[in-house]
Amino acid sequence: MKFVKMHGLGNDFVVVEGHALPVDPGALARNWCDRHFGIGADGLVFVLPSDRADVQMRIFNADGSEAEQCGNAVRCVGKYAFERGLVRRRDLVVETLAGLQRIVLGVNGSRVEEVTVDMGEPILEPGRIPVALAEGGTPSGRVEAAGREWAFTAVSMGNPHAVIFVDDVEGTDVRGVGSEVETNPLFPNRVNVEFVETLGPGEIRLRVWERGCGETLACGTGACAAVVAGVLEGRSGRKVQVHLPGGTLKIEWAEDGRVYMTGPAVEVFRGEIGQPD
Amino acid sequence: MKFVKMHGLGNDFVVVEGHALPVDPGALARNWCDRHFGIGADGLVFVLPSDRADVQMRIFNADGSEAEQCGNAVRCVGKYAFERGLVRRRDLVVETLAGLQRIVLGVNGSRVEEVTVDMGEPILEPGRIPVALAEGGTPSGRVEAAGREWAFTAVSMGNPHAVIFVDDVEGTDVRGVGSEVETNPLFPNRVNVEFVETLGPGEIRLRVWERGCGETLACGTGACAAVVAGVLEGRSGRKVQVHLPGGTLKIEWAEDGRVYMTGPAVEVFRGEIGQPD
Repeated sequence: MKFVKMHGLGNDFVVVEGHALPVDPGALARNWCDRHFGIGADGLVFVLPSDRADVQMRIFNADGSEAEQCGNAVRCVGKYAFERGLVRRRDLVVETLAGLQRIVLGVNGSRVEEVTVDMGEPILEPGRIPVALAEGGTPSGRVEAAGREWAFTAVSMGNPHAVIFVDDVEGTDVRGVGSEVETNPLFPNRVNVEFVETLGPGEIRLRVWERGCGETLACGTGACAAVVAGVLEGRSGRKVQVHLPGGTLKIEWAEDGRVYMTGPAVEVFRGEIGQPD
Repeated sequence: MKFVKMHGLGNDFVVVEGHALPVDPGALARNWCDRHFGIGADGLVFVLPSDRADVQMRIFNADGSEAEQCGNAVRCVGKYAFERGLVRRRDLVVETLAGLQRIVLGVNGSRVEEVTVDMGEPILEPGRIPVALAEGGTPSGRVEAAGREWAFTAVSMGNPHAVIFVDDVEGTDVRGVGSEVETNPLFPNRVNVEFVETLGPGEIRLRVWERGCGETLACGTGACAAVVAGVLEGRSGRKVQVHLPGGTLKIEWAEDGRVYMTGPAVEVFRGEIGQPD
């Protein structure tokens, strides 16, 4: 089977085009995402036809679980679909498990160099994030992890996030704290955990502990959640450069209430695994 | 450029065939071995013609340094050379930086399923291992690590090893003990540390702390050293199945004094990176 290896800020994917999902996509993701015995990736992305949009994306994590949405992956899907002629326009709609997603391609000649993704409106009602907090007001709370309490702000961008502001993100025990917060009963669907250091009103440094993955180089929805939480807590402006270990994203929580994420998508290599097609 | 991704017990390589090394193979290894921004591997292996042997192997680590030799990589080179028709015989000589290495292919139809590598004679003189022990007799001693003393047997297979027999290898703190033994002044060139649980005269379980690497899925020279130490200490026979986290190797310390390692080599996928050929 043919595949393409792509990444957005080092968040890397095996991308496969098809007419439908295979029988057991989770098992395929576990095998192919293994970095020593398989192809190696954070996730397996299927580019599929859609009745409701220009193209459909389904994404499975390295542990076999399905993700509702992934901002880095959707940029790769936009690049893939345009450069392979699946779509002709630069303003597209992508169907995901989390709903329809609008993206705008930054094209140079025949190449897509960056992609702006309309990440939609953040969800701030505790019951819909979901997080076990009282309804009304900012969805902030405290959670115990690694022997102390941490203040967090909960945001859903289609998937749940707990954003924690810290003084020194490099010195933070992302694995120790993140893994405990992820599985805290406050978060019935588990949670992605963002550690944010504010550099200025328009610039933050971010490390993300991803649910089911561990620490990653860059999490698009995490970057959005971090900026939304920053605005809610009065810690940042609405238009922010977010420096992640894998590179930089431009995030805007616009006046229309929607969050726009702009960042790169890169094709690394093409491959073929198993029997030839 | 075309490549093949292969592994031996999870020790994985990007394998490229060519007429000569590229201009800067170390830089290529650093880029391509990166697991998020590149292809992802432990090393980049070049399969080249040889004036002195059937085929030549050159191997560069993920950090760009050149390795003299690697038992897991040479099995992959044997499989690659036979299955692509570069060689026709099953008994080959491979030129490496460490000298000429004889290998024997276990072929089923047109497929190479396992490869036996002649790993040479173990070095047991303390000054040549090197280890700070008195000359004469078995090179055994005691070393302090993680708050207690550990009995070890030192063996060189071209690189130095300290073999420690334990009751329960799963319950052993490989990182804690291994990192302290590695840097103990008894071993002037530092040392790889093997933790061995004997299951029977012909079967052991092994975990290896590799010098400069940490714990790895499989270390070929470590498996050889563990069996040599087992024979010297009367704990195992000369022909042993060695179960490592990445899979199983068959090691024989033969009557001719040489150590033979037999294990699998697996092709995972083919790929093409950069401009098409």
